[in-house]
Amino acid sequence: MTTSGLDPAIGSLLRRNADGLVAAVTVDHHTSDVLMMAWMDDEALHRTLVTRRATYYSRSRGELWVKGETSGHTQAVREVRIDCDGDTVLVRVEQTGPACHTGERTCFDGADRLLLTDDGP
Amino acid sequence: MTTSGLDPAIGSLLRRNADGLVAAVTVDHHTSDVLMMAWMDDEALHRTLVTRRATYYSRSRGELWVKGETSGHTQAVREVRIDCDGDTVLVRVEQTGPACHTGERTCFDGADRLLLTDDGP
Repeated sequence: MTTSGLDPAIGSLLRRNADGLVAAVTVDHHTSDVLMMAWMDDEALHRTLVTRRATYYSRSRGELWVKGETSGHTQAVREVRIDCDGDTVLVRVEQTGPACHTGERTCFDGADRLLLTDDGP
Repeated sequence: MTTSGLDPAIGSLLRRNADGLVAAVTVDHHTSDVLMMAWMDDEALHRTLVTRRATYYSRSRGELWVKGETSGHTQAVREVRIDCDGDTVLVRVEQTGPACHTGERTCFDGADRLLLTDDGP
């Protein structure tokens, strides 16, 4: 957790986990493909809403993380929604470059990432 | 956690949280809209893959939960992918009826669920 400037009205909608985080599902604004799943604390959500640059909370590093800050693969935020029980935000973005650190377009795209498919009608 | 028949090769791809769970992001097969976010343990994933009915793990009830078992709003599974670091599965489904227990089509659809929008070009 970091101290946060998040609007208390928005904060009141959040149902944070024991670490003070909500899940963030990020989708491509144009294709609606799910790009990645990450986490936000209050300040990450605040900065995402105010700067319109997708900002997450890194659980491994224990710090905020502006997507693309080092790679250049930024996410310009177009829409943010919160789910019915307040523990997940859905972020629609204009993605620059690949979303995944592996270089794949999304974090679900690797050939070895497919567990089940059904190409039926 | 429940005992599981999950294929060990798939199990070896998972990076479970402290409760033995992975996040599950479920999307509509036709529209690609994100319907909901929930959790799976090994057995929920196993049953999802084998029965092709989306099955989750209820953290509040501590048990498996076949989506739509009581409401009839089932999810027929068309594709399952796992993300680059193994802590999230992406489930594409044919959704019968609304996905959200509130009666909304998705868990992100309520009018009060929109935190930010940008209708620009």
